[in-house]
Amino acid sequence: MPHVKKYLFTPGPAPVPPEVLLEMARPIIHHRTPEFSAALDQARDRMKPLYGTSSEVILLASTGTGGMEAAVINLLQPGEHAIYVNGGKFGERWGKLLAAFGMIGHEVRVEWGRAARPGQIEDAFKAYPESRAVLVQASETSTCAVHPVAEIGEVSRKRGAMLIVDGITSVGVFEQKMDEWGIDAFVTGSQKALMLPPGLAMVALSARALDVAKKIKTPRFYFDLLKELKAQRDEHTTAWTAAVSLICGLNKSLEIIHAEGLPQVYARHALMAEATRDAAAALGLKLLSPDNPAPGVTGILVPEGLDGGKLVKFLRDSLGVSVQGGQDQMKGKLVRIGHMGHLSPFDMLIAVGALEMGLKQIGANIQLGAGVTAVQARLARSI
Amino acid sequence: MPHVKKYLFTPGPAPVPPEVLLEMARPIIHHRTPEFSAALDQARDRMKPLYGTSSEVILLASTGTGGMEAAVINLLQPGEHAIYVNGGKFGERWGKLLAAFGMIGHEVRVEWGRAARPGQIEDAFKAYPESRAVLVQASETSTCAVHPVAEIGEVSRKRGAMLIVDGITSVGVFEQKMDEWGIDAFVTGSQKALMLPPGLAMVALSARALDVAKKIKTPRFYFDLLKELKAQRDEHTTAWTAAVSLICGLNKSLEIIHAEGLPQVYARHALMAEATRDAAAALGLKLLSPDNPAPGVTGILVPEGLDGGKLVKFLRDSLGVSVQGGQDQMKGKLVRIGHMGHLSPFDMLIAVGALEMGLKQIGANIQLGAGVTAVQARLARSI
Repeated sequence: MPHVKKYLFTPGPAPVPPEVLLEMARPIIHHRTPEFSAALDQARDRMKPLYGTSSEVILLASTGTGGMEAAVINLLQPGEHAIYVNGGKFGERWGKLLAAFGMIGHEVRVEWGRAARPGQIEDAFKAYPESRAVLVQASETSTCAVHPVAEIGEVSRKRGAMLIVDGITSVGVFEQKMDEWGIDAFVTGSQKALMLPPGLAMVALSARALDVAKKIKTPRFYFDLLKELKAQRDEHTTAWTAAVSLICGLNKSLEIIHAEGLPQVYARHALMAEATRDAAAALGLKLLSPDNPAPGVTGILVPEGLDGGKLVKFLRDSLGVSVQGGQDQMKGKLVRIGHMGHLSPFDMLIAVGALEMGLKQIGANIQLGAGVTAVQARLARSI
Repeated sequence: MPHVKKYLFTPGPAPVPPEVLLEMARPIIHHRTPEFSAALDQARDRMKPLYGTSSEVILLASTGTGGMEAAVINLLQPGEHAIYVNGGKFGERWGKLLAAFGMIGHEVRVEWGRAARPGQIEDAFKAYPESRAVLVQASETSTCAVHPVAEIGEVSRKRGAMLIVDGITSVGVFEQKMDEWGIDAFVTGSQKALMLPPGLAMVALSARALDVAKKIKTPRFYFDLLKELKAQRDEHTTAWTAAVSLICGLNKSLEIIHAEGLPQVYARHALMAEATRDAAAALGLKLLSPDNPAPGVTGILVPEGLDGGKLVKFLRDSLGVSVQGGQDQMKGKLVRIGHMGHLSPFDMLIAVGALEMGLKQIGANIQLGAGVTAVQARLARSI
């Protein structure tokens, strides 16, 4: 099949709107100018409703992992204890980060595809009452599951511990309430629902986290959030050279997001997720996380005995449709369809249509068109 | 004067060619694909001649300061001693980085505008023979001066110490010989002669540096160069999400650089620098670093008693021409004209022409046209 036109349904990077690509293709400006300051200030302000916070949102020239590292090294010290939810690849990363910087991480193990239960966090606090923070993903990209951040926040608040949340596949996808949920450090990245190329991370800190950061002695320089906050809030520029084009692009993408309206943006993501899940059901396929599926990415189990790696490769190389397979223990067993950012519910006809054709190709016993029809039916109900 | 068209002569960010802007405006691709791997491999290979190395060049999603941090934390441990050249704002940054991570930095103080003398490094080794590394800028952007990296390398080699070099305004500007000069860690950034927006740093390590990095216990995660090297060299992708668009843009800008030819690129930068210096002389203006001027940026002293801040602001706001003023002790006293990347010698007619008009505006006693004529004369001699 000819496929000059390509389709990106990976859970990051996600498609970038032409308006944003063109904004970033404008001649570069210097980062110590009123013009840049205006874009920086506006972009940071426009981020706040997506975070559900009145705190300052700090921009960093790094990918999301850099933002996760910044949260850890600005809020915890070597030798301090922290509880982290490991329900997938990114939860595991919290553990690696804590270990790399000399903190003592206590793992709350969650089966892949499941949500962490607040009771598990309670138990961890009982076992390790000295824990100063809980680290969790709002949405775990590797398993396509969401964790109950608000409930986990209640537990950590009762214990006087900080709540550090990775919102990389949740901010801009579904409603986030940083202040209401008591999140102390909230991290996201540019390449998902924010509709930008990778290369920009965002971190917001609560008032309490700011106080903690002032006392923390963990060595840091590039990711010194207090220095960065001072520069961005007080001097309207970045501490180091700014990722000028990404920040101007962010300002543009946030303009587009707010023009659509946040409730509409969240409803669109929900609809894309529902349509994709309906398609899976219609095809007789199971989800990895049926009870708590993420609105930004849907994880569909490849029928037993078939090769998911071959499926993903066929979709990409023969149909021009990029989705993602499973990682680690789910390698070859999972296909992940991202539906974040610059995508419309109609695009799910392509994602699901290609998936059906790929499944047929690798020998699955499915009915061509069943999934696509389910997508249509779901979209029709939303009119 | 109307100035819809703007001119960027700052020493970073420097102008980005339209071809590169458009390359980066192409639809985003995923970073675990053969298409991305091909761009990454090619970009990394195309960097080597600019570094003068056969070592692997590692790309990082950060600005140049992140690259400097990566060099420090991968090669030195807390408590270890290092000598650093402080001849300006970026030399000072080495000192801050060393202090932030618990190393003991020994400053070699160099007057702003001067070059470090190899004898000063010898003296520092005599006073602190336990020093494990020398850190220096190949070109100090704040003073527009170059340091003699090859000679400093001889001294550090004799002492068995590592040589860590910031090449942020030297790589791609004039010939760099990492291997011949014995550089162990060589850092640069995307937003200068590499003709890209900010957001990408590059670090290459010598074989010796790689051995050291393997033994170093300094905590690191996002900037773990061994992990990053393994991913980029062996798996043809990045350890964390790749700054896809910047890396594809880098590959394009390096294609343009190699099509022009490195000797031609270096000659062009030299000619722009010479023309700018000739203009300063013709206007009776002095340079901050007359004996060792950088080929990438020229620092011209503002005549005594006049306000350099006002000059820079007038050029930008009234003429649409961005140059940079002085930092710290040189604030208001210096104007820095960058001539790196996507600029041609003819562009110096604009930079110098605007400078003359700005100087008149703030009350300088200069002859309008004298500098421009000097630029013309220098260009004419190069035909």
